[in-house]
Amino acid sequence: MPDDSFDQRYTPKELRFVGTTPIKQDGTDKVTGRAVFGADTHLPGMLIGKTLRSPHAHAKIISIDTTKAEALKGVKAVCTSADFPDIGSGMFADISATCMARSKALFDGHAVAAVAATSEEIAKQALKLIDVTYEVLPHVLDAKEAAAEGAPILHPGRRPKGMEIDRDTNISERGEWKMGDVEAGFADADFVVEEEFVTQPMHQGYIEPQACVASYTEDGQVELWTCTQSPWVFRLRMSEILKMEVSRIKVTPSELGGAFGGKTSFYSDPLAVVLSRKAQRPVKIVLTRGEVLRSTGPVSGIHTRVKMGMTKDGKFTAAEGEVYMQCGAFGGAGLVNALTGMLCRYSTPNVYTHGFEVVSNRPKVNAFRAPNVPQTCFAVEGVIDTLSKQSGIDPLELRLKNAATEGFKNLHGETFGPIGFVEVIKAAQNHPQYSAPLGPNQGRGVASGFWFNRGGETTASVNLSSDGTVNVMLGTPDVAGSRISMSLMVAEELGIEPERIRTKLADTSALGYNHSSAGSRVTFSSGLAVIECTRKCIKTVCDRAAATWGIEPDSVTYADGFVRPAGSNAGEFEPLSLADVCGSAAKQGGAIAGHAEIVAKGAGPGFAIHICDLEVDPRTGFTKILAYTVIEDCGKAIHPHQVEGQYQGAAVQGIGWALNEEYIYNDKGQMENPSFLDYRMPVASDLPMIDTVIIEVPNPNHPYGVRGVGEVPLTPTMGAIGNAIGNAIGIRPKSLPMSPPKLLKLMEENALPAAAE
Amino acid sequence: MPDDSFDQRYTPKELRFVGTTPIKQDGTDKVTGRAVFGADTHLPGMLIGKTLRSPHAHAKIISIDTTKAEALKGVKAVCTSADFPDIGSGMFADISATCMARSKALFDGHAVAAVAATSEEIAKQALKLIDVTYEVLPHVLDAKEAAAEGAPILHPGRRPKGMEIDRDTNISERGEWKMGDVEAGFADADFVVEEEFVTQPMHQGYIEPQACVASYTEDGQVELWTCTQSPWVFRLRMSEILKMEVSRIKVTPSELGGAFGGKTSFYSDPLAVVLSRKAQRPVKIVLTRGEVLRSTGPVSGIHTRVKMGMTKDGKFTAAEGEVYMQCGAFGGAGLVNALTGMLCRYSTPNVYTHGFEVVSNRPKVNAFRAPNVPQTCFAVEGVIDTLSKQSGIDPLELRLKNAATEGFKNLHGETFGPIGFVEVIKAAQNHPQYSAPLGPNQGRGVASGFWFNRGGETTASVNLSSDGTVNVMLGTPDVAGSRISMSLMVAEELGIEPERIRTKLADTSALGYNHSSAGSRVTFSSGLAVIECTRKCIKTVCDRAAATWGIEPDSVTYADGFVRPAGSNAGEFEPLSLADVCGSAAKQGGAIAGHAEIVAKGAGPGFAIHICDLEVDPRTGFTKILAYTVIEDCGKAIHPHQVEGQYQGAAVQGIGWALNEEYIYNDKGQMENPSFLDYRMPVASDLPMIDTVIIEVPNPNHPYGVRGVGEVPLTPTMGAIGNAIGNAIGIRPKSLPMSPPKLLKLMEENALPAAAE
Repeated sequence: MPDDSFDQRYTPKELRFVGTTPIKQDGTDKVTGRAVFGADTHLPGMLIGKTLRSPHAHAKIISIDTTKAEALKGVKAVCTSADFPDIGSGMFADISATCMARSKALFDGHAVAAVAATSEEIAKQALKLIDVTYEVLPHVLDAKEAAAEGAPILHPGRRPKGMEIDRDTNISERGEWKMGDVEAGFADADFVVEEEFVTQPMHQGYIEPQACVASYTEDGQVELWTCTQSPWVFRLRMSEILKMEVSRIKVTPSELGGAFGGKTSFYSDPLAVVLSRKAQRPVKIVLTRGEVLRSTGPVSGIHTRVKMGMTKDGKFTAAEGEVYMQCGAFGGAGLVNALTGMLCRYSTPNVYTHGFEVVSNRPKVNAFRAPNVPQTCFAVEGVIDTLSKQSGIDPLELRLKNAATEGFKNLHGETFGPIGFVEVIKAAQNHPQYSAPLGPNQGRGVASGFWFNRGGETTASVNLSSDGTVNVMLGTPDVAGSRISMSLMVAEELGIEPERIRTKLADTSALGYNHSSAGSRVTFSSGLAVIECTRKCIKTVCDRAAATWGIEPDSVTYADGFVRPAGSNAGEFEPLSLADVCGSAAKQGGAIAGHAEIVAKGAGPGFAIHICDLEVDPRTGFTKILAYTVIEDCGKAIHPHQVEGQYQGAAVQGIGWALNEEYIYNDKGQMENPSFLDYRMPVASDLPMIDTVIIEVPNPNHPYGVRGVGEVPLTPTMGAIGNAIGNAIGIRPKSLPMSPPKLLKLMEENALPAAAE
Repeated sequence: MPDDSFDQRYTPKELRFVGTTPIKQDGTDKVTGRAVFGADTHLPGMLIGKTLRSPHAHAKIISIDTTKAEALKGVKAVCTSADFPDIGSGMFADISATCMARSKALFDGHAVAAVAATSEEIAKQALKLIDVTYEVLPHVLDAKEAAAEGAPILHPGRRPKGMEIDRDTNISERGEWKMGDVEAGFADADFVVEEEFVTQPMHQGYIEPQACVASYTEDGQVELWTCTQSPWVFRLRMSEILKMEVSRIKVTPSELGGAFGGKTSFYSDPLAVVLSRKAQRPVKIVLTRGEVLRSTGPVSGIHTRVKMGMTKDGKFTAAEGEVYMQCGAFGGAGLVNALTGMLCRYSTPNVYTHGFEVVSNRPKVNAFRAPNVPQTCFAVEGVIDTLSKQSGIDPLELRLKNAATEGFKNLHGETFGPIGFVEVIKAAQNHPQYSAPLGPNQGRGVASGFWFNRGGETTASVNLSSDGTVNVMLGTPDVAGSRISMSLMVAEELGIEPERIRTKLADTSALGYNHSSAGSRVTFSSGLAVIECTRKCIKTVCDRAAATWGIEPDSVTYADGFVRPAGSNAGEFEPLSLADVCGSAAKQGGAIAGHAEIVAKGAGPGFAIHICDLEVDPRTGFTKILAYTVIEDCGKAIHPHQVEGQYQGAAVQGIGWALNEEYIYNDKGQMENPSFLDYRMPVASDLPMIDTVIIEVPNPNHPYGVRGVGEVPLTPTMGAIGNAIGNAIGIRPKSLPMSPPKLLKLMEENALPAAAE
């Protein structure tokens, strides 16, 4: 079947398997402990690698003496920046320097050397024998402070993208987007509200710390087993920073014990490769939780100023946003998402956003569900709540009046196709939680959220076996049930039980380039790919049945695992099953397979409303979430339990970010809470059952109507909680985390009754 | 590119890389010890499996009591035939029963139970605690004796294929082939010679014993890491004998430490799977050398009677062959090869062959280089030498007079295309060894050999990376350098250095069905597949370059890694390199890849002449090989060193088979020499340097002219050595091995001068 005949437009039909909830095919292995995670690979002769990290937030590295460490019995290799090739400046140089400090350590926890030894104990002992002479420099942690003149400069001589400046600065990028006439819009407004908000960096908090095993052979080939969302991206980056040909590197992804964007970048993997090269032995590196928190990328903390204008009858006339994004020690944190994603869910005609990415003495930030959008939604949804209060318009009604609909051309130049924002808001209005009574010290908040959803480079293969069962080869690591989702879509296409279809994860040798499992792109993009593969298989199956019968290829139909003669030949021959046709493959041209290499386009944007009911203890400032509902358009839920899991999991992460999670640094810029005892993530007892409502407004660019699912449900959470707290205590917090001491202080400062007790 | 436009006809051209001898890409790993062989896989929680084997050649199994073994601390599972599903009769039932005895043990070493335990020691101890009650039955080892009436019957009630018989018999199959009028042919002959020959079973003698790790998960999926020539065949057979869906099984082939056909069948793999299922832990089984020799398949020992007629001027007028093939305890040993491959290299007009496969109390035979042809060549080449002596026609001249040439339609119905038998014989005539002087007790022998060479089901993928380097995914395990051969062919197609192309071995999830790496099919079949894949890639690369330039796709040319505008657009744009085009893949439709699922056809047959000079010590019967030359048509040597290695390796194995290797059984049918101390394979000091002459008569069905290489060079060896010994001692031995005691006896019986001393 030529590619152009592949119709990937939405084709509604009776579905047998898509939309059901069979047990995940990788589920059993995970509950029995069989699943092989990053740390579970063992190779003969394998060494253990450990990393020496800077205790200083900002320091010149004067010298590193590794001779004593190298002399220790059992130490097989030591590496420093000297072992990494000089690749000039630019993105790959920054990636390399994130993994191993060059002339300066730029944050507490920045790697400065690593060792590989026959045991972890020896490796740790060796780290103590490495002599590093530092010249400590002044440091800066906050984005606004770092952007100010006179701040300690991380990268002297560098100039920002997108702005002219004739002095050293920590600003790494400026961006600006505009649509319509903002001045005129504000002039038309009856209400104008301008407020400032700040969010803190927050770690993705995956259960499984990064772990990898690297084997660099004597003839210059690398095998890397690692927990990654991005095997091909890792391979490409490794080839760039180590100056190796891509085809010499093979990356095999392990099971992922949580990722959430945090495993789209590598940290220890290049160190393991270099140590393996030097030691001529495989090297395993497993990070500790402390290393994960100190040296891998959290999400950006963002200062956001939002100004919005509204008419008396509740139509937004103009909106303006400004952000200062803290991006850690290196730029490239995704400013564009913050600037284009913060306001585009409302059909405001006049919009202006601009902002800055600013480097500071922190680990480089990394992706996290809907990177940089939740932070700005926290701000925008706060301003809208103020407008709601000022105008007396119900918060959901106000959002409904301004909801973007099909045909709205937004700030980033996309004209929305069919989208489900209106349906989502109406479902929220009708949800019983929205009208349930509240008690004293209780508040209800709503907020909306949005994510673009992504497509991109994707490959897959589908191979039919002689018994008509199927293997799917998937290039996108399974962060959230994609193996069962792919099996369901292939099952639907083939009309056979999903149990007969086993989806396996490819290593980088087995398929062409795949972009990361990130951006809520997998069910959409890999779905398109496996459907294309399957339709190619069905075409071949039909052709071969026709050849068997000696009739024209277009005189057969395929349904439910059988080919039948059709048209004038209908009923002339017994139907042939998949097993019949596949069992004769050797006689009819060989194995039946379908392959796809695509750039998936047209991922439909996703919208959500969250409703949060909570109670704030006026004596302690402690917030208890009482009820929480996620209402979201997923286009089509391929496996509804997985969709619910995404809605619930994202809300839980948002609750942690909203209420408790933060990086605590001392005055030397050292992280003081690098453990899960002190870095306070939510636990089960902190949470109510999260209710979910799945809305399905099909994305026309996918045969089953799929949109992304995983990012959207984080974006409203902090806004909804902030608005609920505001309603409970009478003042809307504007700074994360909204932790007990901060809420107590807020209540005291505003002399509310509770604080006045 | 549609398949029908794929021109796989031989296209002679200037070759840059095919025919060169770069270092094998897997070579370094093998010499440094990094290569992962069957026994090198380790999984957390892995158990060790050991097998209890029958000490009897033929015995009813009355009962097996495993309770004591199961009670032993550390034992996690015990399995017997009761754990294998009943799959009735037929090939798969025989495969299952080969791995685990059912109601009877059929040979010394036949598995009757297996255990998995936390250590090898405990597993061995547990074997001793298994109580098996046997009723010992009379046994039979020799094929002719087994075929005779009154022999102990292995499978009462079974009837042979291909013949009518109304009693129980050990004959499992009869076959018959005829061409022309044999009676008339013999009537036209001036010379008629009829002789009988016998060869002994011989083990493939791979260095690496079979080893596997199986993991059967709680939800019924199997992963199997194993040393195999046949991942897909193993998977299919496993699915049949364990009644599992094919797609639930994943077979990952390890490196092979020798195979030679012996790793096309499994023995312990199903035991490991069943033990893993029962223990719910991964299970490793590594055979000992004793187990390999007692229970895995050697090659068949064959009784061959040959009758040939010839005119005075040396033209063969008729030939007749009869074989009794010992096939071990189960049939299906490939009788057809013996009957069709024994005589077809000579253009004899009248041919009749027939024969029998006979079961006996030995392990089922397995494939070995050119299965069942070397044994019959030993006979045919002996008869031709007698004809040469009787007629006075030089042995090579006689073979040249009768050599099959293009257009000859042989016994098995194939009309030969261009073949190189004549070229090979002429090269032998001109080789200096053929006219070198010989000393006392020395003899020279020549013989010819033949193999069909095979094609069959083959799949591959070629993936281009963003830097223009390449990964090839190969479905045929690398038994003899196929990774470098594939890289060379892809390099030739792409016009880039082979170092930039890395060929990797696929597991069964990554590609569609591949037949075994066997039958000298890989360089031909997988070569066709990877060339097809590469040409598809080049097509895409050209299309994308044309799109970049905005010109017609047929207005570009591709050569040496660059696309250039051509025709009226020539010189209009700078050439684009592979890296240029591949680097833009994300903007132009995604990754560039080519895939092929083919049934390769048209493997050109291969022919060889061996010349052997040797000396027989008249006092001891010890044979010393003085000089040995292999002359063979390989079509085209993709990597000449690998071809030479095949020629030499096969000759060495043939020397072992000819002179020493044999299974020694005591009167109870127990193998008495199950170790490399007592089973005498040749060692380096037994051997001269083997000279090789590569003849290249291209196979028109392959773009580079490839034929198979690995099987042919075994087929003449025993014949050449037998003829040389005949010339040295005056009487041509007709029974293998031609070991010192046997030669001494032969010389004594024939009262030759040496024996008369």
